[in-house]
Parts: sequence; structure tokens; C-alpha cells
Amino acid sequence: MNSVTVHDIVAARQVVYRYLNPTPLIRYPELSELLGFNAYIKHENHQPTGSFKVRGGLNFMSRLPEPQKRGGVITVTSGNNGQSIAYAAKQFGVHATVVVPNGNNPEKNSAMSALGAELVEGGADFDEARELCEKLCVKRQLYYVDPLNEPALFHGVGTYSLEIFEQLSDVSTIIVPIGGGSGACGAITVARAINPDVKVIGVQAENAPAVYLSWKAGKKIETDSCQTVADGLATRVPSDFPFSILKDEINQIVLVSEEEIRDGIRTVLRYTHNLVEAAAAAALAAALKLKSGLANENVVMVMSGANLDTETLKSVLR
Amino acid sequence: MNSVTVHDIVAARQVVYRYLNPTPLIRYPELSELLGFNAYIKHENHQPTGSFKVRGGLNFMSRLPEPQKRGGVITVTSGNNGQSIAYAAKQFGVHATVVVPNGNNPEKNSAMSALGAELVEGGADFDEARELCEKLCVKRQLYYVDPLNEPALFHGVGTYSLEIFEQLSDVSTIIVPIGGGSGACGAITVARAINPDVKVIGVQAENAPAVYLSWKAGKKIETDSCQTVADGLATRVPSDFPFSILKDEINQIVLVSEEEIRDGIRTVLRYTHNLVEAAAAAALAAALKLKSGLANENVVMVMSGANLDTETLKSVLR
Repeated sequence: MNSVTVHDIVAARQVVYRYLNPTPLIRYPELSELLGFNAYIKHENHQPTGSFKVRGGLNFMSRLPEPQKRGGVITVTSGNNGQSIAYAAKQFGVHATVVVPNGNNPEKNSAMSALGAELVEGGADFDEARELCEKLCVKRQLYYVDPLNEPALFHGVGTYSLEIFEQLSDVSTIIVPIGGGSGACGAITVARAINPDVKVIGVQAENAPAVYLSWKAGKKIETDSCQTVADGLATRVPSDFPFSILKDEINQIVLVSEEEIRDGIRTVLRYTHNLVEAAAAAALAAALKLKSGLANENVVMVMSGANLDTETLKSVLR
Repeated sequence: MNSVTVHDIVAARQVVYRYLNPTPLIRYPELSELLGFNAYIKHENHQPTGSFKVRGGLNFMSRLPEPQKRGGVITVTSGNNGQSIAYAAKQFGVHATVVVPNGNNPEKNSAMSALGAELVEGGADFDEARELCEKLCVKRQLYYVDPLNEPALFHGVGTYSLEIFEQLSDVSTIIVPIGGGSGACGAITVARAINPDVKVIGVQAENAPAVYLSWKAGKKIETDSCQTVADGLATRVPSDFPFSILKDEINQIVLVSEEEIRDGIRTVLRYTHNLVEAAAAAALAAALKLKSGLANENVVMVMSGANLDTETLKSVLR
């Protein structure tokens, strides 16, 4: 059975640190004043691929058996998982095919191509592209790196949560965006092992609330659409593996509106001078919403990625 | 006599690493395609104060004798040195007064205040503010942290160049913005000690070319104005200490126009998803200008800082 234990995450770290350094956890004084708590940012936006997912890709690829390495891998993505797999594949000399939905962001596509991945476009959204990916995987006899169910990805991703506890031993709350849910699963697993009093708060978009609705209902609920500026949060279909971990263990899931997310991007730019993608800014948006309940706490907001394209940035600043 | 030796820089590192981690050096595949060489970015924009100067501030403050710590310090800045001194002062419980020119960027001012510094505004530009700072220092009996002549600042700043050689042993060229010149002095000192074949190329703004003109002439030349979007490069009066190091040792100094700097900000955003300030973007602008002569080399561009205010970002993206 798939699982995520702190033992898995500690083991993943030995692998991840061959390729990556810990990312900074920084307290921002002005942001702390604005929010009324000690506002710390975990800078996964500083990763070489611009997102936390590269931790998972590297852990996965290093553990892939040689025959599968030689045969090549395939995955599906709106961008960050694809960059992670392409980056890791390049490190290990593995051929990577990446399936993206039709009309996927061209900047993300060109980033994956520049990392050496073979791109295939198809399907109206992530979940349709996923179906195409599953077909191609069989047809081309490639190893399918399922971004929502591959445990080694989750174990690698969990390493940023270990770093949070080392960098701020008296953390009280961690706010983490939920797309597929790997980041939140890592935070929950590490928090329950190291200090169960730490609250883990997930964030989804009002326009893409599948995991939120499922958590409320106690069972998986799909949505008909997931149109949000936060492409990293745009999932219609919750996946069994992360949902089995999140459903009873996460303290809270908060929804934020499109305008709150856009305001989050501007707030992070203004107070930290970091460019973050919309999914990451959702964590800041949630913090603004919850701030009265977090007064004087040590709160970590996970800035999961930096990959905001210039056109979206322009529209957010207008 | 003031000096910068690699011995000083190695010693500073022992201090700096008590407070900071090394910053990433990342190769960007798409940027490498665009530039025709292996394009590496040294991410000093990831520092907690948003600029490389914090390395110098921490090294300085840790070496300040106790009586001077108790008496308090004063410095002059357009922003990054002030944030560095304010940040370091806070770590050591020292009172810091920071003099800024009239009309200095309000975002930078509020960042320094939030770090606990006492702000004084005066003078039309950096060099006039410097004169005010020197007067106040005597009047208030504070220790004057001279940003352009205090060796401990230079030694701390030099530590990023040590990291470059560790992170990329076969670096061939380092491109570094020159405002006061501490970054370039560090790069020269470390390169001459570790591999004298490495070229160090400095960058100034066409609108603020004092160090460039001085280097060309072989003697210090002041300019009448220094109106540039790159406030980190806006110096009218070269300082003796850095100039004595730069004048015979730097391989080249390049001038870039305001539009080239603005284009540099957009290029860094597009290809690395990092927000950088104009002085940092000047290094990218210089690389674009020099790219034919750097073909296939391993080139490090120092992104010295992130502190670009939102209004300037908006105008650059329009």
C-alpha cells in the first residue's frame, strides 16, 4: 500500500541533498507587521526549476531501477511536475516524455523542452491530459510517473517540511497550497512525527475546490471545472493516495478567491521582493484571511513555486 | 592600509555562515540558449535582506568592539547597505542610524525601519547624504560604517565569490555590477587567488559612469549626476579604497543604457522567474551585449539584489 512516513522522508533527504541545498526560511519584518504574526516564508520558489516538486523528481529518479531508466519515463503536468521530472531525468540520463493539456502555458512548455523533455500536447485540462498520458505509457512502453500517486515523489517533497522544523523549531502553523496534495501530505507527516501540536492548514482556490469539498464531505468529490489563475491548484479529481492522508489529518482547508490570489502575488512582491506563482500566493492569501486567529504565532507560508509567466504578472499588476 | 585579501574573505566566511547559508548558483537552460554560453546566476537576490550586502554587514558587526556596539552605529545608503547594517545591528542588539537621500524610495525606507533602524533623510543624492552622515556621526558620537571604505564590509561581501568557485570550479567569467565596488573587489581578489585566468567584468550604467571613467583614465573622476533606474549603481564619486583594487585588476568595465537595464529585468523575470533590482539586471544586460565574445564559456552573472519596488516593476513591464 502507498504511504508516506517520516522514515521515507528522512531517507529521501539523503538523496535530495546530493543535488539540492536546503531552501531558506526567512522571517519578514514588514509582512509580520501586516499580518500580526511572525511571518516566515519557506522559499521553495528558489529551487532550480522554480518549484518544490524537483525534490520529488530527484528522489524518484534516483530510485528507479536501471531497466526502467533505460526504457524512459512519461508523466503529465501543467508545468511544475514536468519540469521536475525533466530536470531529474537529465541528471540521470533518462529520456522523459511529458504530456501537457492543449493550450498549456508556452513559457512552461519551453522550459521543459530546454531541459531536454519530449513534449506531447493533448486533452482540455490536466485530468484529460492524464488519460492521454496513461494511454501513451502503454503504447510506448514507458514508465508512468504518476504525479498524484507515486510515493517517491511524495517522500522527496516532504523534505522541505523537515527543513522547516530544523529552521524554526517553535513553528506553530504551516500554511501550504494544495493542488495534488503532496506538499500538504509531507507537512502533515513531518508535523505528526515531530510535534503534533503544529497545525497544518491547506489552501485551495474557490474556483478549483475538489480537495476542499472532499475533505468537508469525508469522501472524494470531483468538480466539473477548475478555472483558476493558480494553475498549480487546478485539479478537478482528487487522487486516492493523498486524500487518504489528508482527509483525517489536515487541520483545516481554506478557500481563496481569484482576486485574493492576485492580491497575494502583489503582497509577496511588495514585502519580500520575490516573484511567486499564483498557487504559492494562495498561501499568503489564506494567511491574510486567517490572520486574526493566528495572532503572535510563528507561521510558515510555503511559497511552493516561482513560475508565473510575464503576461499573468502584467495583468496582476494592472 | 585598507586591503582585501583572500585570507580576510575566508576568515569572514566563518562569521557569515553563522547567520546565512550559501546562496544558489543555478544554470538556466533557456537563458543559456539565448546567450550562447552556459548562463549561471549567483542568487544574491535570495538573501534575507534582498541583497549581497548583508554578508558585509554581519561580518562588520560581529567584529565591532563592545564599546562601539554599545555606542551605536551610523551609515549612509540608498537602501541595500542600510538594510544590511540594520539587519546585522538587530542580530547584535546594536542601535543603528541610517541616513538616506531626500526622496529615497519609500519601500526601502520602510524596510529599514521595520528592521529597527532610525532613519534620517537629507541631501539631494547619495554623496550629499554621505556628507550629512559624516557630520551626524561626529555630533552624535556614533561609529561611522563607511559603506565604501570599511574593509570588514568588503571582506564579508567577498564570500559570495568564494562560493562561486566552489559551486562551479570551471567558471571562466564573472560579471558583476559596480556601485561602490565591493562586489567586484571580492570577485577580483578571489579569482586572482584561486584561478587568475578567470575574467572579472564590471558593469556600470551609462548614466552613472564614474568608476568606468576613472578606470579608463587611470585616476578618480567624479561625475555631475547619476540619474539611473539602477539606484544600486548611482554613485557620482568613486571611493579610494575600492578604486585602488579595481583600477589595475578588473578585466573590463561595460556600460549599459537605461533601456538595456530595463530589458534585463524583463529577461531575468522571463527566463528565471526571479525579481531582481535594476543594478542586478545590469549584469544580464552586459551579458547580452558581450555574448558573442563569451560563446560557450561558463559565465556567472551576479544578481546582486532583489529590491525592486512595485512602481518601477510596473513601469518596466508596460
